[in-house]
Amino acid sequence: MGWSRVVIKAVIVGGTGYTGVELLRLLASHPEVALQVITSRAEAGRRVDDLFPNLRGHCDLAFSEPDAAALADCDVVFYATPHNVAMNSVPALLDAGTRVIDLSADFRLRDAAVWSHWYGEPHACPEVIERAVYGLPEMYRQQIAGAQLVACPGCYPTAVQLGFFPLLAAGVVELDSLVANAASGVSGAGRQAKIDNLVSEASDNYKAYGVAGHRHLPEIEQGLSAMAGSPVELTFVPHLVPMIRGILATLYARLTKEVDLQSLFEDHYRDEPFVDVLPAGQLPQTRSVRGANHCRIAVTRPLGRDTAVVTVAEDNLVKGASGQAVQAMNIMFGLAETTGLDGIALLP
Amino acid sequence: MGWSRVVIKAVIVGGTGYTGVELLRLLASHPEVALQVITSRAEAGRRVDDLFPNLRGHCDLAFSEPDAAALADCDVVFYATPHNVAMNSVPALLDAGTRVIDLSADFRLRDAAVWSHWYGEPHACPEVIERAVYGLPEMYRQQIAGAQLVACPGCYPTAVQLGFFPLLAAGVVELDSLVANAASGVSGAGRQAKIDNLVSEASDNYKAYGVAGHRHLPEIEQGLSAMAGSPVELTFVPHLVPMIRGILATLYARLTKEVDLQSLFEDHYRDEPFVDVLPAGQLPQTRSVRGANHCRIAVTRPLGRDTAVVTVAEDNLVKGASGQAVQAMNIMFGLAETTGLDGIALLP
Amino acid sequence: MGWSRVVIKAVIVGGTGYTGVELLRLLASHPEVALQVITSRAEAGRRVDDLFPNLRGHCDLAFSEPDAAALADCDVVFYATPHNVAMNSVPALLDAGTRVIDLSADFRLRDAAVWSHWYGEPHACPEVIERAVYGLPEMYRQQIAGAQLVACPGCYPTAVQLGFFPLLAAGVVELDSLVANAASGVSGAGRQAKIDNLVSEASDNYKAYGVAGHRHLPEIEQGLSAMAGSPVELTFVPHLVPMIRGILATLYARLTKEVDLQSLFEDHYRDEPFVDVLPAGQLPQTRSVRGANHCRIAVTRPLGRDTAVVTVAEDNLVKGASGQAVQAMNIMFGLAETTGLDGIALLP
Amino acid sequence: MGWSRVVIKAVIVGGTGYTGVELLRLLASHPEVALQVITSRAEAGRRVDDLFPNLRGHCDLAFSEPDAAALADCDVVFYATPHNVAMNSVPALLDAGTRVIDLSADFRLRDAAVWSHWYGEPHACPEVIERAVYGLPEMYRQQIAGAQLVACPGCYPTAVQLGFFPLLAAGVVELDSLVANAASGVSGAGRQAKIDNLVSEASDNYKAYGVAGHRHLPEIEQGLSAMAGSPVELTFVPHLVPMIRGILATLYARLTKEVDLQSLFEDHYRDEPFVDVLPAGQLPQTRSVRGANHCRIAVTRPLGRDTAVVTVAEDNLVKGASGQAVQAMNIMFGLAETTGLDGIALLP
Repeated sequence: MGWSRVVIKAVIVGGTGYTGVELLRLLASHPEVALQVITSRAEAGRRVDDLFPNLRGHCDLAFSEPDAAALADCDVVFYATPHNVAMNSVPALLDAGTRVIDLSADFRLRDAAVWSHWYGEPHACPEVIERAVYGLPEMYRQQIAGAQLVACPGCYPTAVQLGFFPLLAAGVVELDSLVANAASGVSGAGRQAKIDNLVSEASDNYKAYGVAGHRHLPEIEQGLSAMAGSPVELTFVPHLVPMIRGILATLYARLTKEVDLQSLFEDHYRDEPFVDVLPAGQLPQTRSVRGANHCRIAVTRPLGRDTAVVTVAEDNLVKGASGQAVQAMNIMFGLAETTGLDGIALLP
Repeated sequence: MGWSRVVIKAVIVGGTGYTGVELLRLLASHPEVALQVITSRAEAGRRVDDLFPNLRGHCDLAFSEPDAAALADCDVVFYATPHNVAMNSVPALLDAGTRVIDLSADFRLRDAAVWSHWYGEPHACPEVIERAVYGLPEMYRQQIAGAQLVACPGCYPTAVQLGFFPLLAAGVVELDSLVANAASGVSGAGRQAKIDNLVSEASDNYKAYGVAGHRHLPEIEQGLSAMAGSPVELTFVPHLVPMIRGILATLYARLTKEVDLQSLFEDHYRDEPFVDVLPAGQLPQTRSVRGANHCRIAVTRPLGRDTAVVTVAEDNLVKGASGQAVQAMNIMFGLAETTGLDGIALLP
Repeated sequence: MGWSRVVIKAVIVGGTGYTGVELLRLLASHPEVALQVITSRAEAGRRVDDLFPNLRGHCDLAFSEPDAAALADCDVVFYATPHNVAMNSVPALLDAGTRVIDLSADFRLRDAAVWSHWYGEPHACPEVIERAVYGLPEMYRQQIAGAQLVACPGCYPTAVQLGFFPLLAAGVVELDSLVANAASGVSGAGRQAKIDNLVSEASDNYKAYGVAGHRHLPEIEQGLSAMAGSPVELTFVPHLVPMIRGILATLYARLTKEVDLQSLFEDHYRDEPFVDVLPAGQLPQTRSVRGANHCRIAVTRPLGRDTAVVTVAEDNLVKGASGQAVQAMNIMFGLAETTGLDGIALLP
Repeated sequence: MGWSRVVIKAVIVGGTGYTGVELLRLLASHPEVALQVITSRAEAGRRVDDLFPNLRGHCDLAFSEPDAAALADCDVVFYATPHNVAMNSVPALLDAGTRVIDLSADFRLRDAAVWSHWYGEPHACPEVIERAVYGLPEMYRQQIAGAQLVACPGCYPTAVQLGFFPLLAAGVVELDSLVANAASGVSGAGRQAKIDNLVSEASDNYKAYGVAGHRHLPEIEQGLSAMAGSPVELTFVPHLVPMIRGILATLYARLTKEVDLQSLFEDHYRDEPFVDVLPAGQLPQTRSVRGANHCRIAVTRPLGRDTAVVTVAEDNLVKGASGQAVQAMNIMFGLAETTGLDGIALLP
């Protein structure tokens, strides 16, 4: 019944970063979306494919100045901005009836005071926070379907939460000694001119960072606690890997009960289109999800001892950001959840 | 009129290498193809997605022993094998009326003696060579449409020939002093256990190889001479770049006439769906075609002197191998040439 | 008094791997060593600098067949072989009075049965094991000085043991819930032709491996238990990082007492020439030790909670293998411990 | 006779870039140098090893504000600055009798007008240019010995000039059709916060740049013309390789005479301590000179045709910058030319 199809008119605010270009890649080939506008103050007037030459032949837009009326006229607005941008203009869009998918951190934390503590400034619209649905479909699919405002999870939080979810939901691990050792490719640091992320600094190198405390920790603990139904305490250490894309989270939990871990994970994620529990004995690699919206998970119990080890691979720019945002959009607009997200990972 | 659509039944012979997995990626999502069989003696019985985990959820096949009857029963057979495999079984397939697309070197050279010189053994079926069409659509589109056997160009030859083509067709350069300095990612060396291609050997390193003479040279000179209408002499030096995919060819030609190079190239490739002549002043990067079938080209005349410099970027596994093979298949079967090849390059 | 100096005559057995070439680099510029012989059955007769071109101008030797008499005639024999080589010829060398430094796993475990369990074969000379001193100078300096046979620690064990040592010696952490999340560059996998370690497989990728159980675990637990004075249980998960050299171990321990972690570490390692405790707030990077024998350590207590996080960086081929072997040699022969090991890490 | 040794007091101006840290690495372990001062306006007061952690334990200096008196008080001042810094303060240093080694571009070109054309501003002290000696020891060793001001060659010019030198000196090639296809690791772009050099932009990528004209071209043509004794015309195309260190230049020249190229090169460089002509059949790799001052060269005549191909590998930060500067210093101060430069390249 293609003759009556209503195409979704979409806008990207702040499309010059890596989540922006990835969203462009996904939306430009999404069969139900017409990308109308992409904004950037810094690049206004410049053709998008001049900045991102992979889009030559696939996107005829130029960046434009943000314009409130143009945004409100669309069906959905994606924010691919740093934190502290969306929260200043989202309330007006919501009043205009536009749906909003925010890839930034502005609406992820339920508690405005916690947000202020970690981001170092007051939240611009604390009253809007409760209207935001946390965009992790594997946990909040129903709520996303009815949401007007979706707060997309961060890249690390997606991997860590999906990895611990079956264990916490089943109540089989200690809640105060969880460890998440996670590692990300450099694209997670964004498309910003920083010496630390130069090839000569960050390639052929490996390091931990943010050990003393990282902004993703409160978001993760919020999610894990909701999964467990009681407060969870996590030690979270992110690392920087000399590659472009990909996150691997290696999770450690002390078991409190005998349980068939493989079955627990397979059953938990049986119907999820984008969570792939690997057969026993296989371990995920980031390259197996490069460019794809899949998250691949393995669970292991080293030497049969009392610690479960879960390894989770995702593409930080896809399932960890822009792909998950499109997945949320599909749910919000009643499309098949995999629409436009069936690309196969690029390997090698 | 989907009810009457005839899906192309395809086979891949030798699908365990990088051109094999790339062909799998492209065919698994090609709307007009049903992949029936994928053969490998070494991996017979093993699930394809066990070897290539990016395909989990996209391909349910297992590798099987080559079986002549099963091959002949399909519409098209792709050979993703090393040289010296296809030439031993292609004649029987042709007799059975099956169409064959050979990604290996077996049918690229028109002269069996030259083939024997460079590959060190007699050609198994010299009489079949003349039935092969060289699968470079930008030069032989018409012939490919009617071909039963297509010999896909090598990865370097595609880039070098497409870069020199406008200059040679226009007759504006010296024919005996051409230089092609080309560089490839390591996937060009195949999925073989060789010390030279280990991370510890080939990453953080750059080198030339095959300077004294490389098997792709006679193929390139054959093509360039056809373009020029008279014999061409080329100095060709390949290099190994510490990246996975991508070829960049940097070509040097001495101009013999005044000519507007930018217009020459734009006019030459105006109607080509997969050759993108960049605007003056831009230069191609391999990452702008990562995973895509596009070839991006720039032409420059340094300091206004008498040497033209052409730079050409392609993904060696796509336009340089499997994508070009699918492009040829589309032409052979009367499909739109871009069918199943409209993926956008992965950047970053 | 150079006229009376006794130069140490050294042999390397099995010098074609990465620990071999690194040992060559260190010994070739060591002021008190004369490298006499380097053996390799596979490469016998080939110039060393033909295989390793970085040594051109620094090493005139060719590989030779192993010859028992030539070995026994030297002062010290280094084994840079896979496991299961040294244990077959070391006893004869010890009988001849030669000193032996074994970089392989053959003499690291005190219990021959445990060795057999993890290496899948009987130990060839269990009676010799007790004569071996474990070559971690920070723990066994005195014993090394008097040893005839030194078993050099593995690369992971060095990093993990040095990181936990101050905590265990001080008795301030739980002993049954230690976690070591470690990551290594690809050179740790050796100079072997394996598909898994090709650029196209292991670069632009990150993964865990050996989660179910890794051969280095019993070695590490043996060492940690000695440090703690009672049995220690560790969960150890190694990862593969797309870089050539370097190990970073990220260690997690549950604190049982209030303690000033920074002072504890600084005091513990104050006099160690090759262990560098970073100032509070700094974190180690693998590139800061590339090519150097230093190990850099930071200790952190995230959010002031009860888990200590220790991060340890070393070059797996230097402090994790060949540098540590030279350090042991210096101790055994009464030289200043830093002799020949004062090279500065290569950065960038 | 150590009691009477006169140690060279050295200063580095602008030590926060990659040539700066490499100079620090070399001078910190140079037996005849005492590094007195290292200046940086931006980092004044900060410990050097805080910025460059590889130097922990090897350098106790902090960066300081440039101070003319302190500089003049030393024996030699190295400028590791961008262009347009040295030329403003060098004249005063020369007047004070201090020796100066400039790693920047300020004194490389003999013609101030050419300098102004390529660097876009007037030269600050054109009258000083003629006092500068071009610091390529293989060509100007004698002059360097007596120089007060040495202008170190750029990284590309060193590789290209050393590669063409034997051919030009022997007069066996065409002078108007030379081609230099060169490729550099990303450290050549300096330690500057530029998006183009981020891991996510420049790794897993390969591209040409500056094709229309690059600042190193006039410097190279000036040197080649001096070698040939008549004007030389070169097409020079630099490329960016996804690695940190290393340059490989692939040079093409049309032969005008029969000549034994291998002997020509071996004879030409027989007595050079840092130029290594490889045996026939071998080709240089950048990793074989990683961290070393050597330049390795091979010459080939593909298929016996009339084009000579020379491949030259160097470490752009060592022989291409800081190592060559130390080599010049050794010559200027009458030391053995290899003093402090005998480090072996780090491989793998």
